[in-house]
Amino acid sequence: TGSEEKSPGCFSIDFTVAVVLPAGGSGERTGLSTPKQFCTFLNRPLISYTIQAFERIAWIENIVVVIAKDSIDLMVNIIQQFGHKKVKVVLGGSTRHRSIFNGLQAFGESEEESALKKPKVVIIHDAVRPFVEEDFLLKIAIAAKQQGASGAIRPLVSTVIATTSEGYLDHSLERAKYRASEMPQGFLYDVIHQAYVQCSETDFEFGTECLHLVLQYCGTNARLIEGPHTLWKVTYKKDLLAAESIIKETLAQTACVVAGQCEESSRLAGALQKTLGSQDMHVDIVPTSLRRSSAFISKTWNFVHVTVNTAGLADVEELVKTFEETAHSVLYSVVLILVHLDVSEQTSASERMAALGGIRSLAAEAKRKNILLYGILLNPVKDAGQWEEAVENLSQIISALIKERSPALAGQLLWV
Amino acid sequence: TGSEEKSPGCFSIDFTVAVVLPAGGSGERTGLSTPKQFCTFLNRPLISYTIQAFERIAWIENIVVVIAKDSIDLMVNIIQQFGHKKVKVVLGGSTRHRSIFNGLQAFGESEEESALKKPKVVIIHDAVRPFVEEDFLLKIAIAAKQQGASGAIRPLVSTVIATTSEGYLDHSLERAKYRASEMPQGFLYDVIHQAYVQCSETDFEFGTECLHLVLQYCGTNARLIEGPHTLWKVTYKKDLLAAESIIKETLAQTACVVAGQCEESSRLAGALQKTLGSQDMHVDIVPTSLRRSSAFISKTWNFVHVTVNTAGLADVEELVKTFEETAHSVLYSVVLILVHLDVSEQTSASERMAALGGIRSLAAEAKRKNILLYGILLNPVKDAGQWEEAVENLSQIISALIKERSPALAGQLLWV
Ligand SMILES: [Mg+2]
Ligand SMILES: [Mg+2]
Repeated sequence: TGSEEKSPGCFSIDFTVAVVLPAGGSGERTGLSTPKQFCTFLNRPLISYTIQAFERIAWIENIVVVIAKDSIDLMVNIIQQFGHKKVKVVLGGSTRHRSIFNGLQAFGESEEESALKKPKVVIIHDAVRPFVEEDFLLKIAIAAKQQGASGAIRPLVSTVIATTSEGYLDHSLERAKYRASEMPQGFLYDVIHQAYVQCSETDFEFGTECLHLVLQYCGTNARLIEGPHTLWKVTYKKDLLAAESIIKETLAQTACVVAGQCEESSRLAGALQKTLGSQDMHVDIVPTSLRRSSAFISKTWNFVHVTVNTAGLADVEELVKTFEETAHSVLYSVVLILVHLDVSEQTSASERMAALGGIRSLAAEAKRKNILLYGILLNPVKDAGQWEEAVENLSQIISALIKERSPALAGQLLWV
Repeated sequence: TGSEEKSPGCFSIDFTVAVVLPAGGSGERTGLSTPKQFCTFLNRPLISYTIQAFERIAWIENIVVVIAKDSIDLMVNIIQQFGHKKVKVVLGGSTRHRSIFNGLQAFGESEEESALKKPKVVIIHDAVRPFVEEDFLLKIAIAAKQQGASGAIRPLVSTVIATTSEGYLDHSLERAKYRASEMPQGFLYDVIHQAYVQCSETDFEFGTECLHLVLQYCGTNARLIEGPHTLWKVTYKKDLLAAESIIKETLAQTACVVAGQCEESSRLAGALQKTLGSQDMHVDIVPTSLRRSSAFISKTWNFVHVTVNTAGLADVEELVKTFEETAHSVLYSVVLILVHLDVSEQTSASERMAALGGIRSLAAEAKRKNILLYGILLNPVKDAGQWEEAVENLSQIISALIKERSPALAGQLLWV
């Protein structure tokens, strides 16, 4: 089961890997009152996105999250609310290094029953770098296994200069010779553990680099690997805004159009697939009979339900129930758009509207489950030119609703 | 005129200041086909936002934009479309330093009639750092006047490490002793000009820092000033997304509610001011009679027009015309929301809707002028509890429309 979700990477790892996420920092630099790892966008705290990035990788066995005392309850709630399964929470120390060491102690040697199995390799990452991907983690893990230690580096984005004590330019560094040291870093568990056992109080207090500690205390010289720019760190408010936009954009890359077998349904579904496709949205068309199949549901968080003549509210209600049963809206909101095409000549505009009047109460209920329901009424068109224009406008509205995921507009009935 | 827009800063500058914006770079790092300074968000290229950041400052006289040959036409169109007044376009060179020197040559000594007056101080900035603010530019300009040169610095965000040629860790720098050199930088015009006149071909080809050239060739040691993090540079796609979100958030900080004198209008306007205010939106209430006053219009890009019983489409049409006449939607889209409250007992829901039917064609026309018109119908409520809930829902919808500025949803009639 789930084999299609496994990347090729999982077949080349024949050793155990665990993760330590030190997340005890305060939120000084964001200009926000909440520590940044707990800042929320799209109804979910940043740290949950980072945990998810590791949790979905088959070859990662455990994720130890190291948390300041004041935030333990918050963290436990987050794990429960978002259904994280591989996470263990450990109490942080007074510095970053003490926190990482506490995280490492959660594994292995200890006699406690709650101790996790000691991994061959441990990856250390920042809770505020949510976009780390499997292929790069694989490189870090394999290099750590081979060399004892590994770390992500990036080219310098600015010229680095030394300043005089009076605030004047002293000299600047030759940019090509230096790199920025980033996260993730990987270590043989025994190596990084030994380094912490042996290192001094000064290291615990003021040291900045785990890579240094393993060099100094274990003679292990880290392999440095250039990482992708997606390793960037959420530091300021603008970074939270960027993270939100990236998640929204990623979610908007796919949609599922549920349509009946009749000619009008098929025609509209096909037209939507084409126009949305030209806006870089991959659209699958699913027959009404298969709409509750988990194979389709698990692939996207956006659904367009096309109905012709009959309002289809009962069908939509059933879909909402399915999303609930499959916990599909736990990690991301689900956008569900009911597109109603009335081709019966005799119905008036207000009758068409009345048919969908029930959408508001349904939407209110769905919203409580993180499902955003919108209705769009497609007026009958006379000729091919009008049809094309209507499909174009409809696609733009669907695309806007999917990209914006606005809870405030849920329950609205829009017109094309 | 316009004295309220002048900051205190403009009174302490008693010398001339001009700006050079080298913008000849290619877009390699964004992963986009367009060079990043020309990437568009909210219908406007990044470089226009940066130009605007300087143009609005009274004590900045000229902005020389240095552009690669292939982009000159594009740049001239941008200047015309967005009404930039202080800009001169200059042809770029083969490297960043040659481009800056070309920009400097646009001033002064030359015999050409088109030459700009030579400024005392020239500020050099990146076209891809749009959020630079007046107070910091003032510090840079004054320090440049006093010391001959000045530059923005920032703390390092990552540990900087030296790598061995085999890709292993060599050593890491003591972070506290170093800074990142950023933009803007300021120079006495004569100093930076001299430095370029004297510097070598190698400097033109490979040099990275203007600060170095003035030190080496003019003995001018730059004053380094810590800048705000808002000086960040748009480099990747995520940065464009962040820039768009920041502009949207900034635009959503204010709104103007236009309301009549009747009890219902005043009550609704007051309630909106309170609820939107609690979401950090500063709301001014403007009587219908003053709605075309430029004092109100110039303060915001968001307008909520409250009407009671009469549909108010003619009033809205007049407002659209006013925005057009004052060119108010040139730099940013204007959001105009018509809120219709029908308290006459006898009107049916469909009659209320019909009264606003004309909003679609009006919205289509307004959209061509970058004005986004939306309608919201407020159903009559029975008691105080319902009223509070309705106002809360209305505020959330207004807030979502203002924050999202979605062209696709313009012309829609929403319900509360
Ligand atoms: Mg470290
Ligand atoms: Mg420079």
